[in-house]
This record gives sequence, C-alpha cells and structure tokens, in this order.
Amino acid sequence: MRYFLHLAYDGTDYHGWQTQPNAVTVQEELNRRLSQVLRQPVFTLGSGRTDTGVHASHQVAHFEAEMPANLDEATTLYRLNRALPRDIAGYALHPVPPKANARFDAEARTYEYHVRLVPDPFSSRHALYLDRAPDLAAMNTAAALLLGSRDFTSFSKVKGAEKHYVCVVYEAAWHPVPGGLVFRIRANRFVRGMVRLVVGTLLSVGRGRLTPAAFGEILAAQSRVEASGAAPAQGLFLTRVEYPAELVATAVLPSGMPYFANR
Amino acid sequence: MRYFLHLAYDGTDYHGWQTQPNAVTVQEELNRRLSQVLRQPVFTLGSGRTDTGVHASHQVAHFEAEMPANLDEATTLYRLNRALPRDIAGYALHPVPPKANARFDAEARTYEYHVRLVPDPFSSRHALYLDRAPDLAAMNTAAALLLGSRDFTSFSKVKGAEKHYVCVVYEAAWHPVPGGLVFRIRANRFVRGMVRLVVGTLLSVGRGRLTPAAFGEILAAQSRVEASGAAPAQGLFLTRVEYPAELVATAVLPSGMPYFANR
Repeated sequence: MRYFLHLAYDGTDYHGWQTQPNAVTVQEELNRRLSQVLRQPVFTLGSGRTDTGVHASHQVAHFEAEMPANLDEATTLYRLNRALPRDIAGYALHPVPPKANARFDAEARTYEYHVRLVPDPFSSRHALYLDRAPDLAAMNTAAALLLGSRDFTSFSKVKGAEKHYVCVVYEAAWHPVPGGLVFRIRANRFVRGMVRLVVGTLLSVGRGRLTPAAFGEILAAQSRVEASGAAPAQGLFLTRVEYPAELVATAVLPSGMPYFANR
Repeated sequence: MRYFLHLAYDGTDYHGWQTQPNAVTVQEELNRRLSQVLRQPVFTLGSGRTDTGVHASHQVAHFEAEMPANLDEATTLYRLNRALPRDIAGYALHPVPPKANARFDAEARTYEYHVRLVPDPFSSRHALYLDRAPDLAAMNTAAALLLGSRDFTSFSKVKGAEKHYVCVVYEAAWHPVPGGLVFRIRANRFVRGMVRLVVGTLLSVGRGRLTPAAFGEILAAQSRVEASGAAPAQGLFLTRVEYPAELVATAVLPSGMPYFANR
C-alpha cells in the first residue's frame, strides 16, 4: 500500500531534508523511525528538498509499506511521534492510489520567509532579525515582477541542476505581521536556492541598495551572478504542498498544525 | 543615576540568571554588554533568579551608571541589543529614584508554564510536550488550594535558603490555549524551585496519580519529601514583574514584547 505522510520539522539541527552520506537529515531520521514502527524497511520520498537549516511546517512524503495486522494509520502516527525526536512531527497519514507521488503530483508549493523587526529571543531560530525596517512598498513593487511564468536562472544556486528554470509564480508578496514581516511565495515549482536568493535580493531593494526596476533587470538577465546573497536559512519555512483533489480527499486534515498556511 | 532595564531571554543555553563561577549566565552576559555600551563597569541586580533553562519574557534588573554625554536611553538600548546575543533582548530602559531596587520593590511576579498537547517541532525548546491530555478540572481544583497566604515548604527545592516559605498567591490556574495548556501563577514572592515542583505535582493530579485532596495534604504537610518531581525547565517563563506606580510611571512601555503577560 502507498501512503502520504504530512509532517513538520524544525530544520535548525539538520543538514536539510534529503539523505546524504555523513550528515543527519530529516529524511534519514524519518526513514529510520518509520521502519522501526512498521517493522520493515521504509524509504520515503518527499515533495521536494529543503536545504540545511530550512524548516517545514508542512512537508509531504510518500512511501510503500504493508501495514502490520495489529496497526492502523492513527496508531502508526501516534507511535511514530513517540519515536521521532521532538523537532520532527507527523500530522496525518493516509493511503493513496498506487502511483501517487509526493514529488511529481504536487501542483503547488508555498514558502514563507519570516523577518522580525523587534528583538525576540524566542524566535532566533525561526526568523531573521533586522534592526531597521526595510521599505515594504519598494519590496512589494519588486516582488510583483516575479508573478506569472518567469525564468529563475538569476535566482538559482546550482547551474545545470535543473532541466529548465521556468517557474509559474501565483503569489509573491510581503505581509506585515505583529513585530515583523512575512514574505509568502506560491508557485508550481521552485529551483534550488531560489527563495533565499529572491528574499536576499528583495531585502537589498528594501534597504535602498537596489531599485525595483534594477530587481526586474536582474530577473530578466537570466544570469546567476546578478542577485544579492541568499537570506539566512533560519527564516525560511516550507508551509504548504498542494495536490489534486483525489489525493487529498482521503486525508485526515492535520489539526493543530502550528505554522500551517498563514502563521 | 539608577536605571531599570526590562528584558527577555531564552534560557535554553544559559545556567540561569545569576552570575556564578565557570558557567554562562544571563546576568553575566548582560553585565558584560552593558559595560561595553556604557564604557564603565556595570553590575545589574535582577528582580529574582531564574534557574538553568528557564526563560523570561519579562525580567527587570536595576543598575547604577553615569550615562556618557553623547548617549541617551534609547540609543543605549539600541546599542545594547546590537551587542547582546540573539537569545537576550532589552525592551525598555528608564531612570528610577536612587533607592529603587528591582528585587525588593517588586510587588508581584507572574510565571507561566507551557504545555503542548499536539506535537510541535517549533516549540520543543519552549514547552513541555504531553501526548495525553491531563485532567484540566482536577488540576484546577488542586491549583485553587494554592490561593491566598500559604507555606510552600513542600514545594521548595533548597532547605534553609529562605527566611520563611510563606507566599501570597493571587492567581493559580491552568488555561486552555490552542494546541495546549498554560498554567499561570501570580504571587508576591516565590521560593526556589517552587513553580516547577507545583507544576510537576499538579501534572500528577492531571494524570490521576494524585487526587486534588492528596495535593492539598502535600501542601499542608510543609515537608519537602511529599511533592512529585519538578516539571522540566523548558516550559517555564517568568512573564511579568510588577512595581509600585512611581517606579513604572516613567517607563517606556515595552512594545512588541513577544510573550509579555498572556501569550
């Protein structure tokens, strides 16, 4: 049987999602604990990678497993959460059709980048602190240039890692929240390093170092050397992965998911 | 001139508030940074100690200093926050009368203990996670026995550390919040280890291991051997320190203080 697992993690202490040699990753930890609970080797495949230090308040992974006779989904999820370290949590587990794929069936992903404008000792692992407020209007003028079908070569980290760099951006804007700002971007896909490079360059606009028009020229240049540096990982959250209705119809809605969608 | 500094800190990486040999404490870090910014040796005295790993969303400390000619309070606070590590933040700085004392003039202190009932990777440093909900009504029946003038010998950590163990408790109750519970206790004073021992023993009531009446007997016994173990430090916050009107009239109201009073 194939399953979708909906989960969240604090990425601070992990070398990102994807299993790799000689590094502790979320996927590796999840595979180990799922294999324990289900008493068989389990290999998950996520909707996409998150980089070192990046968080997810909603990530989805699929896996194949035979549910042991004395287990159901709810008990599996309960035991999984007892087995997992406190910085990873499962929220929903449900069967999907045999060919459902957490990566290729995802129709949209949403990321949020959290900026704090007042010192907050309790969010130092989950936001970027800025001691001067950036120019929100200028950043949103620039962010609007990302909307639609755009080539993100200028905001990609690794050359040649993708077949193409075109992403369809449905939403890209900064929103004021108490004590800070949140940038939310929703697109059909993202290329490696894209959100942190976009945010870093938008913050250059917010600081007055770049005009919104110059931001548009960087995007249009399709050249990786033009963008500002990447914003630090600790402010970035994968917040939502969306699937066609037939894959979510059976889902238990994750309740109490702390950062799900809008924080 | 004497000043009150209002501050907050994430206690996870500190051996509590109070300066001690061979350990990193909040007070020590604060003294060092204040001395840097004000270019003179500064020694703070806090409203009270917090133990290793305990947080404060509102702590108050007083100190003596001559403000350098080119500095005012707002600039000092700004520079202090640039100098401090991200897990400590100053919120307000204001002059007080020469004999004002952050410890002895405090009329009431409030602590909150945060419990999460849904797995939340983002609060693992700031709450206790329980995978079964305790009996809220039973815990509140027991907590009500703490109200008024009571001897807290049964809930004190260190024998002989205090002249007496009588505290006047103005408020003591558990409150449901989204995804969890918060215990709030407000009193004129607290003895060492009191809140964590009270919370640990109330959670025994919540699990059905003790009746509210047995909790009352433990309190009445005035004996330190009766209480349950202390609840873990990571869920505990000092959230408010109250002073007479003449000491707060001049205070800049701390804005954006993230956990101030009710979260």
